[in-house]
Amino acid sequence: MSLNYAKRMDNIRASEIRELLKLTQQPNIISFAGGMPAPESFPIEEFVKIGKEVLEKSGNLALQYGPTEGYQPLREAIAKRMAKIKVDAKAENILVTSGSQQGLDFAAKVFINPGDIIVCESPTYLGAINAFKAYEPKFIEVSTDEDGMNMEELEEALKNNENVKFIYVIPDFQNPTGKTWSIERRKKLVELGNKYNVAIIEDSPYGELRFEGEVLPAIKHFDTEGRVAFLGTFSKILCPGLRLGWVEADTELLNKFILVKQGADLQSSTISQMEAAKFFELYDIDAHIQKIIDLYKVRRDVMMKTIEEEFPKEVSYTYPEGGLFTWVILPEYMNARELALKALEENVAYVPGGSFFPNGGNENTFRLNYSNMNEEKIIEGIKKLGKVIKDALR
Amino acid sequence: MSLNYAKRMDNIRASEIRELLKLTQQPNIISFAGGMPAPESFPIEEFVKIGKEVLEKSGNLALQYGPTEGYQPLREAIAKRMAKIKVDAKAENILVTSGSQQGLDFAAKVFINPGDIIVCESPTYLGAINAFKAYEPKFIEVSTDEDGMNMEELEEALKNNENVKFIYVIPDFQNPTGKTWSIERRKKLVELGNKYNVAIIEDSPYGELRFEGEVLPAIKHFDTEGRVAFLGTFSKILCPGLRLGWVEADTELLNKFILVKQGADLQSSTISQMEAAKFFELYDIDAHIQKIIDLYKVRRDVMMKTIEEEFPKEVSYTYPEGGLFTWVILPEYMNARELALKALEENVAYVPGGSFFPNGGNENTFRLNYSNMNEEKIIEGIKKLGKVIKDALR
Repeated sequence: MSLNYAKRMDNIRASEIRELLKLTQQPNIISFAGGMPAPESFPIEEFVKIGKEVLEKSGNLALQYGPTEGYQPLREAIAKRMAKIKVDAKAENILVTSGSQQGLDFAAKVFINPGDIIVCESPTYLGAINAFKAYEPKFIEVSTDEDGMNMEELEEALKNNENVKFIYVIPDFQNPTGKTWSIERRKKLVELGNKYNVAIIEDSPYGELRFEGEVLPAIKHFDTEGRVAFLGTFSKILCPGLRLGWVEADTELLNKFILVKQGADLQSSTISQMEAAKFFELYDIDAHIQKIIDLYKVRRDVMMKTIEEEFPKEVSYTYPEGGLFTWVILPEYMNARELALKALEENVAYVPGGSFFPNGGNENTFRLNYSNMNEEKIIEGIKKLGKVIKDALR
Repeated sequence: MSLNYAKRMDNIRASEIRELLKLTQQPNIISFAGGMPAPESFPIEEFVKIGKEVLEKSGNLALQYGPTEGYQPLREAIAKRMAKIKVDAKAENILVTSGSQQGLDFAAKVFINPGDIIVCESPTYLGAINAFKAYEPKFIEVSTDEDGMNMEELEEALKNNENVKFIYVIPDFQNPTGKTWSIERRKKLVELGNKYNVAIIEDSPYGELRFEGEVLPAIKHFDTEGRVAFLGTFSKILCPGLRLGWVEADTELLNKFILVKQGADLQSSTISQMEAAKFFELYDIDAHIQKIIDLYKVRRDVMMKTIEEEFPKEVSYTYPEGGLFTWVILPEYMNARELALKALEENVAYVPGGSFFPNGGNENTFRLNYSNMNEEKIIEGIKKLGKVIKDALR
């Protein structure tokens, strides 16, 4: 007996990260693989208080169905918060989603017919690739430099392809490369979106986790025609366990996301939304984010310093100014998937970089996460990794 | 400026219920429209205790990412629970979803190419129609009687159409009709599924809310070939605000749902899942469900008695043995959408039945919910509705 599945199922593979995470749940593993926040940063005591207050004051509401768009006070808090990245949002422009991953799925559902094109950074977020692939798109990867996506290459792609539906970008501390777009590139991206009438999906889970310099305006800030949908999440500034994110977009585009949300799961958890809103009401989210930044900055510093000391000179890597990741490029003759097995023998895990390229290749790369391990483990793990790489040198 | 959306967006309309619910949130409205549980039944005090315990004992886990498949102790509790409906499930066969609505979306995502056929009961759950339509299927509606779907008509549909991908059914206290399938029909459905190699999606949100008689075995109980996916939910036996449901299926089919879940939202809320599991650990869910049954049975009795007294003899309706709904058929010359406006003038709301027919028509029907209003309001509302109907008689 074999059931007759939809064609899209041929495109969908298990996420290498999620499968790897299962392996790395043994406590003796030093994992640079996931993108997990540091649990030391979770506001557990605050949530005990919040949970009690929400249920005792409004239990009937918290445990009941609510509107698809989201819990109104949370939409308001999110809209207000977006001023930080210079987006002038109203509560009506916010759809609360189940993490920003759901926003990625919805973006493809709203825009993609089989064979349509998504333009993205090369490499780009593996979870986005997986979400998008269910809608059977083609991908055009555009190279990036230290200022973001290469705009000439992007314009070539837009000029030569009719059915580009959207450009997917992660402008702040990109996953996986850790790179950040300059203001000029952000502006230019919107200009090209306008010129070729293409939507822009701006995914910014880490934007507020900046260790040095100023928080930059979102690409959405430069949007004059309602073609940018901004995806945000609470996973990295509060905690992932609530599964809350949001889409901010102009009315026409947001309404498409809302329609899709109705069919997909009616709404995100009422009680989680009320708890998140209560956190905004009772606590100082900026102070909380500063604590996360202080924690991660030290880890970034330790990881980068140890990499500098322990990795051979044949290896290059990004110096991230924020976020959770750095990106390593090995000599071309090395294969990071094979090396990952050797690293696992030493109880060190990372994600091979090939999975971040929707069209394949680039097997000599990998991603390192520094948010989830303490300094001691980072030093130990990077030393071991350095040895594994050195042993593979020709 | 107009963006170029996917074709599927032409099929998706805002849910009439969700739009209506917004109207009916004014406190003076007597609403028989939604499918909302009675908030009086929510275990608020228990959740205060549970929330505290989960966070204090395992806050680091509760606020962190978790596996796509779901929180293992919750999967185990669900699997064990399914013995009630004679399904011999293992934890590995459970995928925790964000409500059973998400299971519906996934079912279509797993099976439907544009133009493929879904066979369903006529009428069927509006939220399922909306979820499925995003995947551009055709619908074949099969009529039902007091024992469930008409099996001769079903076999004709399967015999005469090659690309039927699944049969979608709600065998217990169906939404919207309140009807329940006999054991014979359940068996026969699986036989026909086997004969024509078609999958079966069994959606059973209300199965345990039976006011009289015995809980029946699920259709999944009769599945010998792994072609039935069972969708369950906590929304009606605990509360909807957590947004938790599940899919139970054999390994091959469940793996497809898990892959889809990864892309769609990575996982359902870790903390919600841990809280639900803790409820199973600390409290007697059967006793809790019995309280819900006691509450709803009285409301069903009051509604049916008042309908009998107040509706004219030209009207027919279902007598539900459980669940949340009854279904009303008006004389053919009446239009329940037009009548709904008159009823709203009297501050009474219901859902016009036309929306429950994927291929349209049947505008002389409507659905009544009795779980969300107290007895006094039910009597007042049904009396007013009776008058509105009588005024429309020719």
